[in-house]
Amino acid sequence: MKYGYGVDLGGTTVKMGLFRQDGRLLDKWEIDTDVSSGGRNIPSDIGRSILADMKKHSFAKEDYLGVGIGVPGQVWSDGTADAVNLGWKRLPLIPELESVTGLRAVGDNDANTAAMGEYWQGGGKGYDSLALITLGTGVGGGIIVDGKCLQGAHRAGGEIGHLPIEPNETRVCGCGNRGCLEQYASATGCARLAMDALAEFDTPSTLRSCPKIDAKAVWDAVKAGDGLALRVADKFCTYLARGLAIVANTVDPEVLVLGGGVSRAGKVLIDMVTERYRVYAFNACKDTPIVLASLGNDAGMYGSMANLL
Amino acid sequence: MKYGYGVDLGGTTVKMGLFRQDGRLLDKWEIDTDVSSGGRNIPSDIGRSILADMKKHSFAKEDYLGVGIGVPGQVWSDGTADAVNLGWKRLPLIPELESVTGLRAVGDNDANTAAMGEYWQGGGKGYDSLALITLGTGVGGGIIVDGKCLQGAHRAGGEIGHLPIEPNETRVCGCGNRGCLEQYASATGCARLAMDALAEFDTPSTLRSCPKIDAKAVWDAVKAGDGLALRVADKFCTYLARGLAIVANTVDPEVLVLGGGVSRAGKVLIDMVTERYRVYAFNACKDTPIVLASLGNDAGMYGSMANLL
Repeated sequence: MKYGYGVDLGGTTVKMGLFRQDGRLLDKWEIDTDVSSGGRNIPSDIGRSILADMKKHSFAKEDYLGVGIGVPGQVWSDGTADAVNLGWKRLPLIPELESVTGLRAVGDNDANTAAMGEYWQGGGKGYDSLALITLGTGVGGGIIVDGKCLQGAHRAGGEIGHLPIEPNETRVCGCGNRGCLEQYASATGCARLAMDALAEFDTPSTLRSCPKIDAKAVWDAVKAGDGLALRVADKFCTYLARGLAIVANTVDPEVLVLGGGVSRAGKVLIDMVTERYRVYAFNACKDTPIVLASLGNDAGMYGSMANLL
Repeated sequence: MKYGYGVDLGGTTVKMGLFRQDGRLLDKWEIDTDVSSGGRNIPSDIGRSILADMKKHSFAKEDYLGVGIGVPGQVWSDGTADAVNLGWKRLPLIPELESVTGLRAVGDNDANTAAMGEYWQGGGKGYDSLALITLGTGVGGGIIVDGKCLQGAHRAGGEIGHLPIEPNETRVCGCGNRGCLEQYASATGCARLAMDALAEFDTPSTLRSCPKIDAKAVWDAVKAGDGLALRVADKFCTYLARGLAIVANTVDPEVLVLGGGVSRAGKVLIDMVTERYRVYAFNACKDTPIVLASLGNDAGMYGSMANLL
C-alpha cells in the first residue's frame, strides 16, 4: 500500500489530507493561506506542514506517491503557477514543494482537481467519464475522460460557466462577455433571477419578506411550494439543463455531476434539472444520469491525491 | 515503410485509398455501394476490391497496417456496425473485412474519421487537438484530443449539429428537438434563413430572381455585396460562431476546422465567423484559429488510414 498527500489551496485556507492509494482518507487538517508578500511563503508553508505530518508516521519515503495540489489558477508544465487572488505569477510552486518535502509534486487547477476527486471517489465513482459542474458564486467545471482531465489547448477545457447560453442578455458577465451560463446558473445568478422575478411579478411570495435573497432562500421557498420561487427555479434549471445538454452533445460523459453551494438544494434540484435536460439533450444522451457531488469541500483534496496515481 | 487502406463508405459509393504510413496517398478508386439485401454484400465487395489492389503491388503482407473504414453509422467494440441508411443492424463488418482481406481492420463513424483525416493530413495538421465541424445537409462534427477521437459514452461526442442553440425556435429539428445548431448552420439551414429573410424584408436582392435558393446562391450573393444575402450570412455566422465558442469553452481544441459543402464559401465565411466567434468565446480561446478543411471528400479515407497508426 502506498500513501500520498492531497492538497487543496484556497484563498483563506489550505486543506490537506493524507490518503491511502485505495482512496481512504487517513487524516486531514488545514492551515491558513498566507497571502502576504505576494503569496510567496505558501509553498514552503505547505511543504513544512507535510514534513511535520510525515514525521508522525513510520512510512518509508518510497511508500509515498508524492504531493498533489489544486490551485485557484493554473499550474504550467514547468511547475510554475499563476493565481491572481494569491498574487502568483509564474511562482515556482512544484519545485519548491518538492525541495521542501523531498517528495514528487504535481499540480492542477482547482476546478479540474475537484472533478478528478468526484471521479475517483465521489459522485462519479465507477463511471469512465464525467463532467462536474460546480454551482457556487460562479459556475465552474471540469471534464474527465478515461481518467484524464480535458485541459484544453488554452487551459479552458471545462469552462462551462462561460458557455454563451443567452443571446439576448444585455448585462455583462465577469469575463466580459454577455449571456454566459454563470450569469444564471450560479448562486449569484439564482439570486438575481429571484430579484428580477420579484420586480416583474406582483404575486405574493415568502421571498418578499426575506431579509436576504440568496440561492438558499430561493430553494427553501421552492421546497415550501412558493409559486414565485418555483418560477425562478424553473428558469434557473432551464438554463442549467441547456448547459448540461451542451456538454453532453459535445463530450458525452457517462455522468453529469452537480456540486457547489447551490447543489445543496438536493433532490428537488436534480429532479427539475433532469426533466428539463431531457428536452434539450440529443437522443443518445437523454438518459445520462445527473447526480449530486458527494465529497463537498474535500473534492479538491481527493482529486489532488488522484492526480498522483 | 508500411502501407494501409483507408475506406470511406457512403450511401452511393465507397471511396478507397492506398496510403503510405507517412500520409502519402498512392492510389484511390471508388466502387458502388450495394444497398440491396440489407447491405450485406458491402463488406465482401470492399474486401475483394482491396484484395484485387493488393495483387497489383509487391508488398509483403507484413507491410500492411490493415484496413480502416469510416461508416455512416456506428462501429461497436465487437466489430459489428449499425448504419440505418445501408440497412445494417449489428452487421459483422470488421470480422468480414478481416476474413476476406487477411488484414487487420478497424472502423469508426464517418464524422469521426473525417475529423481524424483533417487532423492527420488536412486543415488541422500540426495541431495537437481539433474540432471539425462539417457544414453539409446537416451539421456534423468530430473532436480529436491528443490524437484520439472523443467518442463519448453514448457515441455522441462531437454531436455539434445538435447543440441546443436557439431557445426560441418553434420548428422541429430532424432529431426531434427544437433549436439545434443544424437548423441554422447547415446548407439546409442557410437556405431556410434566406427564405425567411426574403419573406420578412422587401429590400431588393439578386436572390429574389434566383431559380433555386441554396447555400451556394446565398454565399455567391454575399461575395457580390448583396445586402439581403449579407444579412442572412450574418445570422448564419452568428449561430455558427456561438456553436464554435461552445466547443471552445468545453473542449478548447487548438484549432477549429470548417468542412462540408458550405465551407466552399471560403475566406469570406472564415472572416465573418471569426469576427463573431471572438464575441462569444471565453478570453483564453478568443484567438483559436478557425480554418478551412483541406481534404474535401477524401477526409474520411485519410482518417480511416490514420486510425490504423
